[in-house]
Amino acid sequence: MIAIRAANEADFEAIWRIFHRVAAKGDSYVFPTDATREDARAYWLSADFKTFVAILDDAVVGMYKLRPNNIGLGAHVANASFMVDPECQGHGIGKSMGLHCLDEARRDGYLAMQFNFVVSTNTPAVRLWQQLGFEIVGTLPRAFRHKELGSVDAFVMYRFLDTLG
Amino acid sequence: MIAIRAANEADFEAIWRIFHRVAAKGDSYVFPTDATREDARAYWLSADFKTFVAILDDAVVGMYKLRPNNIGLGAHVANASFMVDPECQGHGIGKSMGLHCLDEARRDGYLAMQFNFVVSTNTPAVRLWQQLGFEIVGTLPRAFRHKELGSVDAFVMYRFLDTLG
Repeated sequence: MIAIRAANEADFEAIWRIFHRVAAKGDSYVFPTDATREDARAYWLSADFKTFVAILDDAVVGMYKLRPNNIGLGAHVANASFMVDPECQGHGIGKSMGLHCLDEARRDGYLAMQFNFVVSTNTPAVRLWQQLGFEIVGTLPRAFRHKELGSVDAFVMYRFLDTLG
Repeated sequence: MIAIRAANEADFEAIWRIFHRVAAKGDSYVFPTDATREDARAYWLSADFKTFVAILDDAVVGMYKLRPNNIGLGAHVANASFMVDPECQGHGIGKSMGLHCLDEARRDGYLAMQFNFVVSTNTPAVRLWQQLGFEIVGTLPRAFRHKELGSVDAFVMYRFLDTLG
């Protein structure tokens, strides 16, 4: 039973714990593996975008944020970013947040959603987004310095929001 | 004879004039067509990135900025952004700035350069970047609301920096 609600300041310690675990792995996000609490706060809690947390067994186990991918003449395309606690995988948390995020973006009037940087070797993420209707619309050659694999490609993924999914 | 040098505060009025003209056209950049002086300053003059201006006949006729496209594990890929005064086209200003920018990026140790949002209908820009070794690595469907053409695609363009160009 995964619940999703708007994040608030009281969630920060849980957000930081997840952010730190994800960044330390160095396999899915550009954050330096020693990224700080201040990095986590700037990235996840700001009045400039919406942040949501996923709750499982009364604990915060993931978060996502939603914002325009560009200003002005590009502001009809949403961007979103997701993290799931590496110690809580296999519960469908990413999928629940993804579906929630697509609904939220539709409610906000966005016409499409773009992910700018999905690490190509992060197969569970690539497959999840494909399952939720995203297509790989671009490949950035060797754009990510994977902690263990060296330079690997990153994908740009995109979908329109006018269909179910 | 186009000269290129680092920008300084005294260049701001010229930068604003060019920015305003380019934004008002609504055909190549996401800025709202009524973008302000403050928007121009935030975008073009900051300690967070390097800005250069192109000089022709003692006047500033274009500018570019150079910065990492991502932090941390993506910081080896540069991003750059260019504007040429719409009233000074056909002098090779964009090409001069592009070549200067590629050299500057190599000096700074970047391994590749990425443009995140080249409007597909901006044919002169697309051709220039292809001439300078960039490839279209992604297509963002209808991601730009062109002032006259409606929703059009934008391209992600990319090149490695380890060859001449």
